[in-house]
This record gives sequence, C-alpha cells and structure tokens, in this order.
Amino acid sequence: MSIIERSQPREIKFTTGINPYAKGSVIAEFGNTKVHITASVEESVPRFLKDKGQGWVTAEYSMLPSSTHTRNRRERSKVSGRTQEIQRLIGRSLRAIIDLEKLGERSIQIDCDVLVADGGTRTTSISGAYVALAMAVKKLMEEGLLKESPIREPLAALSVGVTSAGKVIADLNYEEDSTCETDMNIAMTKSGKYIEIQGTAEGEPFSRDELNAILDCAAEALKCVFSAQEKALS
Amino acid sequence: MSIIERSQPREIKFTTGINPYAKGSVIAEFGNTKVHITASVEESVPRFLKDKGQGWVTAEYSMLPSSTHTRNRRERSKVSGRTQEIQRLIGRSLRAIIDLEKLGERSIQIDCDVLVADGGTRTTSISGAYVALAMAVKKLMEEGLLKESPIREPLAALSVGVTSAGKVIADLNYEEDSTCETDMNIAMTKSGKYIEIQGTAEGEPFSRDELNAILDCAAEALKCVFSAQEKALS
Amino acid sequence: MSIIERSQPREIKFTTGINPYAKGSVIAEFGNTKVHITASVEESVPRFLKDKGQGWVTAEYSMLPSSTHTRNRRERSKVSGRTQEIQRLIGRSLRAIIDLEKLGERSIQIDCDVLVADGGTRTTSISGAYVALAMAVKKLMEEGLLKESPIREPLAALSVGVTSAGKVIADLNYEEDSTCETDMNIAMTKSGKYIEIQGTAEGEPFSRDELNAILDCAAEALKCVFSAQEKALS
Amino acid sequence: MSIIERSQPREIKFTTGINPYAKGSVIAEFGNTKVHITASVEESVPRFLKDKGQGWVTAEYSMLPSSTHTRNRRERSKVSGRTQEIQRLIGRSLRAIIDLEKLGERSIQIDCDVLVADGGTRTTSISGAYVALAMAVKKLMEEGLLKESPIREPLAALSVGVTSAGKVIADLNYEEDSTCETDMNIAMTKSGKYIEIQGTAEGEPFSRDELNAILDCAAEALKCVFSAQEKALS
Amino acid sequence: MSIIERSQPREIKFTTGINPYAKGSVIAEFGNTKVHITASVEESVPRFLKDKGQGWVTAEYSMLPSSTHTRNRRERSKVSGRTQEIQRLIGRSLRAIIDLEKLGERSIQIDCDVLVADGGTRTTSISGAYVALAMAVKKLMEEGLLKESPIREPLAALSVGVTSAGKVIADLNYEEDSTCETDMNIAMTKSGKYIEIQGTAEGEPFSRDELNAILDCAAEALKCVFSAQEKALS
Amino acid sequence: MSIIERSQPREIKFTTGINPYAKGSVIAEFGNTKVHITASVEESVPRFLKDKGQGWVTAEYSMLPSSTHTRNRRERSKVSGRTQEIQRLIGRSLRAIIDLEKLGERSIQIDCDVLVADGGTRTTSISGAYVALAMAVKKLMEEGLLKESPIREPLAALSVGVTSAGKVIADLNYEEDSTCETDMNIAMTKSGKYIEIQGTAEGEPFSRDELNAILDCAAEALKCVFSAQEKALS
Repeated sequence: MSIIERSQPREIKFTTGINPYAKGSVIAEFGNTKVHITASVEESVPRFLKDKGQGWVTAEYSMLPSSTHTRNRRERSKVSGRTQEIQRLIGRSLRAIIDLEKLGERSIQIDCDVLVADGGTRTTSISGAYVALAMAVKKLMEEGLLKESPIREPLAALSVGVTSAGKVIADLNYEEDSTCETDMNIAMTKSGKYIEIQGTAEGEPFSRDELNAILDCAAEALKCVFSAQEKALS
Repeated sequence: MSIIERSQPREIKFTTGINPYAKGSVIAEFGNTKVHITASVEESVPRFLKDKGQGWVTAEYSMLPSSTHTRNRRERSKVSGRTQEIQRLIGRSLRAIIDLEKLGERSIQIDCDVLVADGGTRTTSISGAYVALAMAVKKLMEEGLLKESPIREPLAALSVGVTSAGKVIADLNYEEDSTCETDMNIAMTKSGKYIEIQGTAEGEPFSRDELNAILDCAAEALKCVFSAQEKALS
Repeated sequence: MSIIERSQPREIKFTTGINPYAKGSVIAEFGNTKVHITASVEESVPRFLKDKGQGWVTAEYSMLPSSTHTRNRRERSKVSGRTQEIQRLIGRSLRAIIDLEKLGERSIQIDCDVLVADGGTRTTSISGAYVALAMAVKKLMEEGLLKESPIREPLAALSVGVTSAGKVIADLNYEEDSTCETDMNIAMTKSGKYIEIQGTAEGEPFSRDELNAILDCAAEALKCVFSAQEKALS
Repeated sequence: MSIIERSQPREIKFTTGINPYAKGSVIAEFGNTKVHITASVEESVPRFLKDKGQGWVTAEYSMLPSSTHTRNRRERSKVSGRTQEIQRLIGRSLRAIIDLEKLGERSIQIDCDVLVADGGTRTTSISGAYVALAMAVKKLMEEGLLKESPIREPLAALSVGVTSAGKVIADLNYEEDSTCETDMNIAMTKSGKYIEIQGTAEGEPFSRDELNAILDCAAEALKCVFSAQEKALS
Repeated sequence: MSIIERSQPREIKFTTGINPYAKGSVIAEFGNTKVHITASVEESVPRFLKDKGQGWVTAEYSMLPSSTHTRNRRERSKVSGRTQEIQRLIGRSLRAIIDLEKLGERSIQIDCDVLVADGGTRTTSISGAYVALAMAVKKLMEEGLLKESPIREPLAALSVGVTSAGKVIADLNYEEDSTCETDMNIAMTKSGKYIEIQGTAEGEPFSRDELNAILDCAAEALKCVFSAQEKALS
Repeated sequence: MSIIERSQPREIKFTTGINPYAKGSVIAEFGNTKVHITASVEESVPRFLKDKGQGWVTAEYSMLPSSTHTRNRRERSKVSGRTQEIQRLIGRSLRAIIDLEKLGERSIQIDCDVLVADGGTRTTSISGAYVALAMAVKKLMEEGLLKESPIREPLAALSVGVTSAGKVIADLNYEEDSTCETDMNIAMTKSGKYIEIQGTAEGEPFSRDELNAILDCAAEALKCVFSAQEKALS
C-alpha cells in the first residue's frame, strides 16, 4: 500500500500581462500563495560574461512585509541567507533549461515578489518564472531579436513533504510545511528529468523508500503544473 | 482667464481586501500608476514612545524593480534619499489626521509597494494609505480593541504641475511630470485644510499667482479623490 | 487685523573666507544657529552628466555631534532620512538659480556642517550656501575659468511658523519650532519667485488664510536676508 | 552494467585537538581540501529560544582568501549568498542529529574555516564538524555538564557527481566538480537515512536512473567517512 | 653638534567656549591646522563598564570634507582605518591621565572635527582635547557633580620628524610631513613621562641616535604647548 | 642594576609551505600564539599606483573566532578599529624594507589569520609575514619574473613590556600583556634600525629610562627572531 496520500497540488492560477513595462509578467497562485513575477530584458551581460558570446538569466526574490501572518521586516540593509538561497535556486533552475548561447549577449532578470505567503513560495516562484521567461522569449522573437527560442524544455517545481504520520503529500501549505518531518523541493523538466532536488529532514531523517515515494508523488503532481503553464502561455 | 487647464485627476480605482493577513489592504490606481498598500497593526510602540500612553503610525515605501520603464535596482543595501523622503512624507501626513492618544499603545505600519509607476506614486500612496488605515481602524473597532475612531478627518493627496506653456494641470503622469516647470504635492483634509505642501521649481521659479492657481486646482481635483475613497470604504 | 506677529529674522551674520582651500567659504549665523559652509569646485561632472555639456551643483549636510542640546550620534554607517531630505533640498534649490550649461563641465560641491543648531538649520544652510556659491563663481571668473556668471538670481530661505495661538512668526528658533502648529520652509529668489515651498502641519492642519499670511511674512523677512548676503559679498 | 565509476573517497585525515580554547577542534582533510573546524560552547541560547528548555547548534563557514587557486576577497562587508547557503546547510545538518532538549540551554557554535579548497568544502565541513561536535559533547559529559549524549547518530556528508561521460563518481575534486553535469551533496546518518540531499544539474538534467546510481554510490563511499570519523574519535 | 634643527612649534591658539551646549569646547590651532573640539558629558557608561564603579572617556575624530587641499569624501558608510587609528589614539591618551574611578559612572565624549588640515591633526586634537576635557571637569566640579578633579596631570602631544637631510624638526606642517623620512607622534605628561610614542619610518629606517634626538626635541617643544594650554585654561 | 628581567622570546617556530596556491606561506608560532600567513602575488597594482612604475605590498589581518579564550564574533559586516590598526601596521612595516620600484608593477598581498591568540599576534604576524614575503620573492626570482630581490633587509618585530613591578620583559603572552603598565611593539631591521615603534602606557606613564631599557631588551630579543627566520628560509 502506497504511503502517498495526496499528489494533487492546490488550485493553480497564472494571471499574465500584469506589468506594462516588463517583457513577461505573471501573478502565480498556488492556493493562497501569490507571487508577482516579471521578466525584464537588458541588452548587456554581467562583467564576468563580457565577450563570451552568451547571455545570462538571473533572479531576485523578495517577500513583501505583509505577505506573512505576522509582518516581516523589509530587507533593506542586508539580505537574509534564506532569501539568497532561494534566489540562487530560482536563477540556477532557469539557466538549466536555457541555451545561453542562443540567448545571445543579453540578460533576462526575473523578479519574484511574494504578495501572500502560504507555503511553497520558492516553487511557486520557479513555476511562475518559467511562464514570465517564456513570455519574454516570445516577445523577443516577435521583435526579431531572437531567431529561435533558447528554451530547451518547460520547467516547473513543487514541494513534497512527509507528514509526522509518515504520509507523503504534495504542495504543502504553510501549516503543513511547519509540521512536516521532511520537506523536499523538486524542479523538473517536462520530460521528467531533474533540475534541482533539495530535501531536508526537519525532524526524522528520511529513508530511501520515503525518498522514492516523494519522487513518485512529485512526478504525478507536476503534471498539473505543466498543464496550467501551457494553458497560461497559449 | 484662468491658467488652470485640467483639474480632473486620472481614473481612480481602489481595490480593497487584497491581503488576507493585514488589517487593511488596497491596490490604489491613478491612471496607470498602481500601488499595493497594506496596514498592519502591532500591539506595541517604538522605544521612544514607551509608556507615553499613545500610539504610532509609520510608513515604508518601495518600488518594485520592474515598476519603472527601465528596471530599477532593488534597494537592498541602502535606501535612497528619494525613498526616505517619500516614506517620511507618507507617515507624517497620516499622523496628522490621527489622534495618537485615542489609538492607544499600538502601531499601525503602512507598506506602500509601487507595482507600476506612471507619475504621482507618492500622492497615490497617501490617498491609498488613508483607505488602508481606515479599514484597519474599522477592523480594530469591530474587534473591540478601539472604542472610538482615532481618525479626525479623511486625507487625500495629489500632484499639480505648471507646464512649460504656463498652464496648471492636476495629477501628472510620468511624461507630464518630467517636462513640468513646477511640481507640487498637496495633502489635504476633506474640510480643505492643508497637511503638507511641497512645491519645487524644477525649471522656472513660480510666482505667487501660479501658486494660487495650483492651490485652486488641487482643491477642485481632490474632491474626486475623496469621493472615490468614500465609495471604496462603504 | 493681521495674524503676522513677527516678520523680522534673528540677527544674521555671514563670516566669509574661513577655509583656505575651498573656492568659497562662510560661517552663516541666524541667531544662535551656526553653519560652516564651503563650496569646492571639481573640474568634472558625475557620470550621469558625462558629455552633456553642462555642470552640476550638489550639497551635503551634516550636524556635528555636539551641535544639539543633547549630543547626537555621528552618521557614520548610514545617513538618516532627515539628513538626506535636507541635503537634497539644498542641492535642488541651488541648481534652480544656476544655468548649468553656463557653468560648463564642472561640479560645485557645497558642504554644510552645522556647528550649533538652534532652529532653521536647513534655511540657514541654503542662505549661506548661496554666499559660498557666489564666492566660488567669482573666483572662477577671476581665474578666467568662467566668462560670465551662471547665477541667474540671488537665493535665500527662511522658516515661518504658525504658533498655537494662531500667530505667524518668521525664523523660528528651536523652542519655537518645537511648539509650532505649522512649520513652513520657503526658498525664494530676490525677485520674489518661489524655488521651494515645504509646509507641514505638525499639529493642526492650516487654512488657506494662514498660508497666505505665511507667504506674506516670508516675503517681508527674506528682504533682510538678501540684504545681509549682499553686504557679505561686496 | 553499473554507471558507478568510483565510490572511493579521496584520502581522509582528521587531526584533532588543534585549538586549546574550543571544546572540540579538528583539521579535516579530503584529498587536498583542508578545513579548520572548532566547536565552541556558550552557556546561553539565541533570543528566539529563551526559556524554551532547549539548546542550539549553529555554524559559520568561511574561506581564507588564499584557500583558492586565485586569491579571493575576504568577506568583510557582506557575506555572499554561497557562504550563507553553505553555513545554513551545515547548521541544519548538525541539528538534525542532535536532541536539542537533551543539550540543555546552551549553544554549540561550529566554525569552519577553509584553509585549502580543492572541491567538496561543504561536505568536508559537515563530516569534520561532526567530529568537533562529538569531541565537545564528550568534554561536556566529562565536565559533568551533560549527563547523557544528545547525539542521536553519527553524521557524514559527501559530494557525488555525474561526469559528461555519464559516469557516477564520489568525492569530486575542484577540477572534476567544474566539469560535472550533475553535482549532488548528500548528508546521511550512519544507519543510512538522509539528512540532506541537494542535487543540481549544472549541465544536462539528470534522470531517475542516474539519481539512483548517485544514491548507491554515496551510500558506499560514506562508509569510509564514518570509519575515519570513528577512528579519529576513539 | 646636534641634529635638532627646530624645536619650536608653530603658532598655537586655543579659542575656548565656542559651543553653548558642550561642557568644554575649544578651537585648537597649530599654524594653519585648525580643529573644533568639544567635550560632552553623559551620566551613563558603556555597557562593558556597567556597575564597575568607574567612568569612561572616549573620542571621535573626523575631517570636514573641505579641510584638505583637495576635497575628501565624507565618511558616511564606513570609517577608514586611518580615522579609527587616530580616534583610538586620542581616547587612549586621555584615559591615561584620568582616574576613571574618581570620574564616577559617567562618560566624557570628545569630538574632534578637523576644519583645516595642514599637518599634525592628531596631535593638535590631543593637545586641544586636553583643554576641552579640563574645562568639562571644571564645570562638573562647579556643578557639584565631582568633588575632586580626576585629572592626574596635563597632557599634550606633538609630531617630530627627521628630514631627508637628517635634521630633526618639531611640529611638521603638511608639506614637511609628506617629505620626512621618519614621522613620530609623542604624547607626554607635563612631568615628562610618555603616554604614547608612535614612530614610523616612511623612508629610511631610523637609528637609535636619531630616536634620541627626536625625544629631546619633543621634550623641548612640548613646553610651549603646555604653557599655551595653561594660559587658555586660566 | 638593570631593570631588564627577560630578553628571551618564547619558543619560535616557522612552518613553511603550508598552502599549495600562494607563492609564500608559513605558520608562525611564538609560544602558544599561532598565525597562518600567506603571500599571494597579483600582476597588477591598486588604482592609485597605475602607471607609476612601482609595485605594492599590503596586508590583511584577521582572528579566527575560536582563536581567543572566549569565542569572538567574526568581522563580517564591519572591521574593528583594532583590526584596521594592526593590518595597516603590518603593511607599512613590510613596505619599509621593500624597494617598490624593483618589485615592478605587481602586488604582494599578505594574509595573516590568527589561529591561536596568546599575546603578540601583531608582532608574530610581522615576523612571519617577512618569511612569507621572502619566500614569494624567491619564487618570483626562480620564475624569472624578478631579476634581483627588492628586499633591502630582513625585518622582525616583538613586543616588550614594563610589569607593575617595574621590570622589562620581552615577548609578552596574553596574561602578561593584560597586566603590564606599558606595552611597546618594535619592528626593526636586522641592522638594528627602527621601522616602527609603538608604545602605550596602559597604566602608569613610562619614563625615558624605562624607554631605554625597553629598546635594549628588544634589540637583544630580536636577535633570536632573525635567526629563526634565517633558519626557516634556508
């Protein structure tokens, strides 16, 4: 008997076109979690890539102070380790599905600003950032700045957890996330290959069997995310 | 013949209830300008007010990086003078219409995050912040934490400019703002008294006559703002 | 009957030539308030003005720790919002009376360091900065670096307040400033046009009539300041 | 036929007792990589744990400027995202094998300073930090400050990669790490349960089969690490 | 034949009572060098001295941007090593002549702000700080807050250099300081004992004989400084 | 009868070649004090030396958090005055024995990281830095990048103190350092000339006679340091 209890993500909503200036923009919602995402294009690359014939994709992540139950301080004098970890993860995941040479010497800057945080803000950011990125690429192609798309494959991400009762559930909300023994974030391509796997035993260490159930659950649940992305982009 | 050319503000929209955690929340729109505003309540006061039997209202203002035509840097290591000037203005204006003793020993924190900037972000923030503040006060009264409202009077703000042709126009958008000779921000109570007046000659210094026309224009235009606030709060 | 009670500023003193290295320098005193001001010239412009055929004027403002009744902390790791607001105001006011193209590709840096603070430090800074600026321009002309003066008109500034008794008084000292209902700072050209108007209702909002009395009072009081500047520069 | 090419880690050396002041100290070496690690004990807890009847374990990670091929800048004004990510990982991993209530209201601070960086500095830090932590706990028990050990199980960590030829190899050195398609860091308990799994596709995304080979390889290779730790602690 | 060429300091001027709020204040001038110094008293001690029955004396040093030939940047986001070194030296020197227990649980904060820098700003600061400190102590005694003076002995400081011609000269101005082989700062008590000696070979290392001549020269020159202090304080 | 009680330094150990990447590296030990030192070479100079036909030598100094009895905070957001003072002293001392023109347009960066602090960390750093620097210069000559050595003379440093019993002792450990009346650091060339002298009266001011005994004691004790350096470099 399977230990997978829930492989259905919360209700997903991608509202595109919310910003008049960015090439791609979307509000991504997974249940109550709500992230404002834009993809801005600059016709230049960071210094370390100068004259290397390739582009760059990078991301910033931030939470609005009132996005959490109790108001958070604004990160104005220094950026927390958590924030840095998350934005590095988002940027790395997006670069893994982009052919940076095909992108040419330009940068795509993703900005993820969490409006409401009810669990899964980093995976919602990745899933939504893919939508904003795809919109920006489409725009660049329409404008004749790109001849072919540098996107290799769609990308989506989701969290999966193991409850204290030993059950595996997909797309944790804040309360579930706080009580889970294990919390794993999985970023995957549409063809089922892994971009990032990050699992942490918050309580009990997890076994190989639990890991396998987590991976099965993620594969199942991510199908819904890919389908919602496709709908938003068509 | 009057030099007032336009005393009608752009289309105003206040969408309330956009955040599940803050006591008051609103997206305020003046034309394309769009500001996300929340009012969070904390049952404590800053150190300098400890044991003085009064409350506090303060504000933070920030622009999302993609809110402007060309993406802006996030203010993460230091806050610009412009940002500080604006958030001090917002906080000061709100405190002027609040009886801080009636508020009791609690703080209301206003967060204004600009989603789209097309001129007038500081006045849109003040006008919207009043709405969020009034919502928060209403909530505190419903919860029995406040017996009577500490709000003395409604507050709204607007920018008025003098064009290079010498004409006075209300509620400048970004392009108008960039080309005006004089730019004045006026925060007023509903009864027509001034809370803040800030006028700057960007180009030509302005005369006493021009100042009078600006004040007349503002009084006229602010009527629309007060009426939109009332509608949003009813 | 007029509500203007006092339109005479405190005793004004401009002691010039206090620094051997800066092109212009002055200690400006309004009553007990005392500000050390220098105008330094650099033969370059900030990056955003490169190759635009114009110059720049900017200002920094700082209070010595012992300038206030109770010693203040030195602003060494970050600059307060108040400081930034004031130095932006000083710079903006000076630029409004300078023809930046005539100034050529050079920068004039104004440094205002408050030695003693007894109210009106920002207006004393502006009034004194005009003197230092005029001295620097004169020096540049004597040295043949400028052919004609880029200064369009003299500039002076003063604070005017409304007392709790409803009376309008010019050039507030610290104690008066702390108890006023309204505090307005006005920067004006000698010909009577406005460069900056900043009025804040610290207590009661102010009416249109009060505003008019404030403006009348300022016009009267600023005559003394212009005359003291002239004397210092002759 | 297995795709695992190398499941043997580099030569491992733990030199203990290198610091006279810390309760536990060790230089951990995996091949050329060399990390100086100490465990310091403070009889207090961070503020967020005050009066909760439990202790805390946390870690800091830093690279000496000359630890890398080309000298690195010292992190003196801000800490990079990479550093923060690593030290959060080390702290989290250690806390997962410690019963914080049994530790009592005291903190163990782990300091990992990389002397030489030739790949795997974060896993070397975790494996060595376990040794320093176990030494500190032993000292606390000898001193009568702890009655029983709060350590639930030994902990070790290792990196495993997938080469561009599709082969799985354990304990990557710097050069291997730079050319691998996938790089995974695995922190495991001695009984074979996972504490942390972090895998990133630097190049090609990785398949479920590759993931399984990585996990098999890690399990095999970590046996050597556990045995080296045991020897160092006996 | 002596290698001492000049043991006479530049013209010394101490103008006291320049600040209405601080307990002691002086503008100290050695030749063109001019430092604004205040001594402020706080009835509390830094945390590390809480409840130890003693007081504290500390100093801050800063240069006005226009104090140097070419304008300097204001130290607003971080304080340079030079500044820190100098203010630590000033504080340490003053504490060496004060009986901190007799001072009681209060702090004297010295602020040295250089108005004009023409060599010897740190020694001018120390010599002038002694004057401000003595004034503050006298005020505290007059106010009955101190029964006896905690000052053990007068303190003064001076720089002495060795020129490239091998000659020893006292009280270097900026130009002399820039070309000297050796630059030594000496802080001494009136009875001829050393508080601080800091000598640096900027060019050629210096011999024991040169050191002896430097010390002789300093002893001679400091007599003038002690006598100027006495005059200022009487 | 001499007041010199001990002119023998603690046991000295220089362990060279501890870092595979830096041109010179050494662990320097004076008694329990232990400093990890590297000399890294960059083929460029700081901006202020661009195109001046000379090189640069500079130093950074840092204490590992666990190097002291009680763990110290890591200097990550700002560097203390003590640290800056020490690293400026180290750099200045090294530059005094180097012919910067002979060094050519390259920089040597010295990194001193204190592993164990038991007094004399700054003098141990200087004495060890000379060893690392000499190794780096030798390497540059072997590689043909330098034709002749830019080192003028060997350099060593030591602390000497005056105890409360009035006795002069060399090479103070932490406990001696904390109780001494006077603490002097002396950096000298092998030929007996002074590079730096820094003496501070922590308690009683010191007399000219005591100063002479300190200098005699240092001269004697430094012989041992020069001989240990020579042995390490041969």
